[in-house]
Amino acid sequence: MRLTQYFMPTLKETPKEAEIVSHRLMLRAGMVRQASAGIYSWLPLGYRVLRKIEQIVREEQDAAGWQELLMPTIQSAELWKQSGRYNDYGKEMLRILDRHEREMLYGPTNEELITEIFRNGSKSYRDLPKGLYHIQWKFRDEVRPRFGVMRGREFLMKDAYSFDIDYAAGRRAYQKQFVAYLRTFARMGLKAIPMEADTGPIGGDLSHEFIVLADTGESEVFCDREFLDHDVLGRDVDYSDSASVEKIVDYYTNLYARTDEKHDQALFEKEVPAERRYTGRGIEVGHIFFFGTKYSEPLGAYITTPDDDSVPVQMAPTASACRASSAASSRPATTTTASSGRSPWRPSRSASSTCAPPTPTARRPATSSTASSWKPVSTCSTTTATSPPAPSSPPWTSSGCPGSWWSARAA
Amino acid sequence: MRLTQYFMPTLKETPKEAEIVSHRLMLRAGMVRQASAGIYSWLPLGYRVLRKIEQIVREEQDAAGWQELLMPTIQSAELWKQSGRYNDYGKEMLRILDRHEREMLYGPTNEELITEIFRNGSKSYRDLPKGLYHIQWKFRDEVRPRFGVMRGREFLMKDAYSFDIDYAAGRRAYQKQFVAYLRTFARMGLKAIPMEADTGPIGGDLSHEFIVLADTGESEVFCDREFLDHDVLGRDVDYSDSASVEKIVDYYTNLYARTDEKHDQALFEKEVPAERRYTGRGIEVGHIFFFGTKYSEPLGAYITTPDDDSVPVQMAPTASACRASSAASSRPATTTTASSGRSPWRPSRSASSTCAPPTPTARRPATSSTASSWKPVSTCSTTTATSPPAPSSPPWTSSGCPGSWWSARAA
Repeated sequence: MRLTQYFMPTLKETPKEAEIVSHRLMLRAGMVRQASAGIYSWLPLGYRVLRKIEQIVREEQDAAGWQELLMPTIQSAELWKQSGRYNDYGKEMLRILDRHEREMLYGPTNEELITEIFRNGSKSYRDLPKGLYHIQWKFRDEVRPRFGVMRGREFLMKDAYSFDIDYAAGRRAYQKQFVAYLRTFARMGLKAIPMEADTGPIGGDLSHEFIVLADTGESEVFCDREFLDHDVLGRDVDYSDSASVEKIVDYYTNLYARTDEKHDQALFEKEVPAERRYTGRGIEVGHIFFFGTKYSEPLGAYITTPDDDSVPVQMAPTASACRASSAASSRPATTTTASSGRSPWRPSRSASSTCAPPTPTARRPATSSTASSWKPVSTCSTTTATSPPAPSSPPWTSSGCPGSWWSARAA
Repeated sequence: MRLTQYFMPTLKETPKEAEIVSHRLMLRAGMVRQASAGIYSWLPLGYRVLRKIEQIVREEQDAAGWQELLMPTIQSAELWKQSGRYNDYGKEMLRILDRHEREMLYGPTNEELITEIFRNGSKSYRDLPKGLYHIQWKFRDEVRPRFGVMRGREFLMKDAYSFDIDYAAGRRAYQKQFVAYLRTFARMGLKAIPMEADTGPIGGDLSHEFIVLADTGESEVFCDREFLDHDVLGRDVDYSDSASVEKIVDYYTNLYARTDEKHDQALFEKEVPAERRYTGRGIEVGHIFFFGTKYSEPLGAYITTPDDDSVPVQMAPTASACRASSAASSRPATTTTASSGRSPWRPSRSASSTCAPPTPTARRPATSSTASSWKPVSTCSTTTATSPPAPSSPPWTSSGCPGSWWSARAA
């Protein structure tokens, strides 16, 4: 299609409600339009980007062994009453009465419904392990939606749920998602750092947030600069080999990385040498939880063991909002960020580095047959960017890491 | 992925609520599960089918020159008050109050929102013609949801909207969608017959329904059997050539085909020779409207003409529900239909004819680089089907038509 025919209503002026750069750029480039507070239409250019992000997420989830399904946006309140969350969720949940006065809601997340689907479909340890995910629109009725699609009310989220026989198996599922997330964001050209996190209203005892460093982020971030020098796409991952998956996770979790919620300054100074201490801001782009039997018990998702016992299934869900990824992806190549010097991955001389074609070895997708390489369309400048050198050795085994595509451009 | 690991919870018994065969099969094969009345979760197998249908729709819309975007599911009531439809729609519209007591709704369709998007993005005749579409979940709060995904409340629908300077241009857009729909359903292995239709609450003065013949259909259908002998995929369509597009449309619209709403028995008998009269039932899978300035006027979508006049833009929208297509696709190969003898396309000796690989010439997609051929996964039997012969001449030009893949099997 010719550009003159393409529906891309650009704006000359920056709308005054757009406080942060990603919001400004996405509006001005004709990628999105606000339909109402915190609710956006994705115009052709923006929707192409969103669909590419969605496809990367899908390919990496599939590669890790998760299966895609799709749950509806509108749910009955009944299951949420069984789990006890119907009242807990408060006003952030969009509550609806249908024409027969039945209580419904627009799903803010799907633990209850997926647990019911699993319960009705699987009864025996032979059906495990199982990983299911979906990419569906969610609604959270934020008091003050802001920052464009980054903190909107209606947003596209991938949520994955694993079902396992015991804690050890559930932990393995958690670790696979951990690695899938590292790869997913890396393929988008984002360096997402996993950080210990509070489990929040979803509950459980194991939790990591994935944070993309950005001046406009809502969280304050403290981490080891070593994170920035690693390339998670440097080699293929064999998800059937639990030991190698665990090795990757151990590497990342042994480095200090916390948001202000969990930050311990004394520990930070003890564990990280002064020259490697990084402090900045970040955007949460993903979150992994492990909550064991929190939902399977009240909702009755029990599994028969080989010894003929009946135990509640162990669950580890993960969530990642595609909206935040697209906003985060629209950020790095902007002048503001690029010239601030505070972002460790600011593009160096090549202002269009986010558009550089990925090198085959550095950004090889897990499933080569379905893979598509991603370029953030909106932020491309017309200068020719040179491809970065591919890493020469696997980052997990080498202490002198060869550096990633991003880190090669860092300060 | 191995079948033993695949999440496909089949049912041995037919659930008693499933009255029609597509509903029974989709439940029993583990394709869908009801989440609440008229609301379904699409399990991995069913979701694969839904996504393939979605992709065919997308490819054919793109080929016809329409551009994809995505509007949100939740809309503000404000625009609907401007168009006057907020009250008209009645209880079928799912109305919502958000936390600030603002009136919102779950979009049953998108004329208002797309008109606003166009209005804010295009002002001049130079921006025309423009065609925009999206594939998004809709909600219509049916009194009695039934027939599984066929008449559910939450459903996936493609709706397309064209914007043109005058009636003649709008009519050309209408005709392009007409042909795109013929091709879309043909690629799904469905013979969808365009029928003159009432315009209903959407309004306008030109309207066709696309009806797939099926015993379980809700509409009674009267048509010329000649429809069944044509293969719309027999040759590529050049959408930039209005005359050839019009020729196809004229061919179809000159043959008698009406549902009971519009049927005229005397005319039917006058126009169609007795041996070619077909009477049966059908499922509506698509609908095209032309409503001119019905929305552009109240919503202020005006365009500057070359003479510097300002005129309301002409609009022709189309809608097609993917849910109905998937249910319709799950139907033909069933024993009930196949043996009833009433469907003109009942599979003959090969019970698995809906799974026969398409012949390159007979079902060649418009955009060969992105095309994927579609097979209804759930209804495949294991018998080997032979491919039908490809038509030897273009169906539009020949009065002795070579017959389509479907019609080759018809009684």
